[in-house]
Amino acid sequence: MCESEETRTAIMEATFEALAEHGYADLTIQTIADEFEKSKSLLYYHFETKEDLLGEFLGYLTDQFVAQVQAETAADATADERLRATLDLLVPTELEVADRRFRTALLELRLQAPYSETYAVRFEALDARLDSTFEAILTDGVKAGEFDVDPAVGAHVLTTAVTGEMLRMTTGGTDPATAREAVYAVVSRFRT
Amino acid sequence: MCESEETRTAIMEATFEALAEHGYADLTIQTIADEFEKSKSLLYYHFETKEDLLGEFLGYLTDQFVAQVQAETAADATADERLRATLDLLVPTELEVADRRFRTALLELRLQAPYSETYAVRFEALDARLDSTFEAILTDGVKAGEFDVDPAVGAHVLTTAVTGEMLRMTTGGTDPATAREAVYAVVSRFRT
Repeated sequence: MCESEETRTAIMEATFEALAEHGYADLTIQTIADEFEKSKSLLYYHFETKEDLLGEFLGYLTDQFVAQVQAETAADATADERLRATLDLLVPTELEVADRRFRTALLELRLQAPYSETYAVRFEALDARLDSTFEAILTDGVKAGEFDVDPAVGAHVLTTAVTGEMLRMTTGGTDPATAREAVYAVVSRFRT
Repeated sequence: MCESEETRTAIMEATFEALAEHGYADLTIQTIADEFEKSKSLLYYHFETKEDLLGEFLGYLTDQFVAQVQAETAADATADERLRATLDLLVPTELEVADRRFRTALLELRLQAPYSETYAVRFEALDARLDSTFEAILTDGVKAGEFDVDPAVGAHVLTTAVTGEMLRMTTGGTDPATAREAVYAVVSRFRT
């Protein structure tokens, strides 16, 4: 990893920690800098505003999701196994306090999208990436005879399901077990 | 309608207008009072804080949803027809500017739930009301042989689908037609 890449990763990790700790509303470049072990001026050098930094962070998060999906799924896994691995990342069996806080902050940030083109573009890309990940899996699953569903529509349904459950878990009292059961009930309807 | 009920309805309607116009972040009791045609002191007499007022508003909205579902569905309608009428209210074919703004404000308010017991209780009740509305329809549909689904799980799936699509429409670039198609794709999987 080159120096600038290492710095970027360190900044992104500091942003993750600051979001989980402070939530979105109380987040400032300063609270992120407080989590950043390297020179604070380096952070200010890379990002002028909180919006710049969080926009970049959303891109990092999207890339991280793709990398995690690849890491969690074996090359010879069936479509169903890949789907389960992907859903496990998105709708975990338990939601620890820091994880719940981070996901809440991410949803708060998402609700800034109607007022910020920077965030709107990033969340649109995040949703599109979730859609395309699910669509690729469902397409393979249909070819292999595991699933019987229009891959594009099925993928949209699954992205909405995981995003909606996240919203209900953080703000509607839904527990993780119920959320998972509901998401898997949708998946079961896609199976042949 | 008695005087106090009429006043309450007028306050709730003013709150609706103020939320659609200003969004949640810029909402104050004063901006609501500006939409309220009767005496402003009457509004301050009924509600001490914005949180009190918005909590009450969320209860009003939940009641309005139930009343609208009843008004839209004929007594002799099939479960499938009742389900369609309910979904039409929640995922409309078009999202006009004021409607989009109002739904965005409602989601912003929802993201306050992790920090406010008043809102948390109300959104939990709203989700529960959506769940129970769908569950009653699916239960009747299963009895009538129209649907083949566990009514409680199917209801949770549908509440998540409509809530998730609302979030994606306001913050993720999903258009209303795609949202509706996805919700109806879920429903089609519940049919016998």
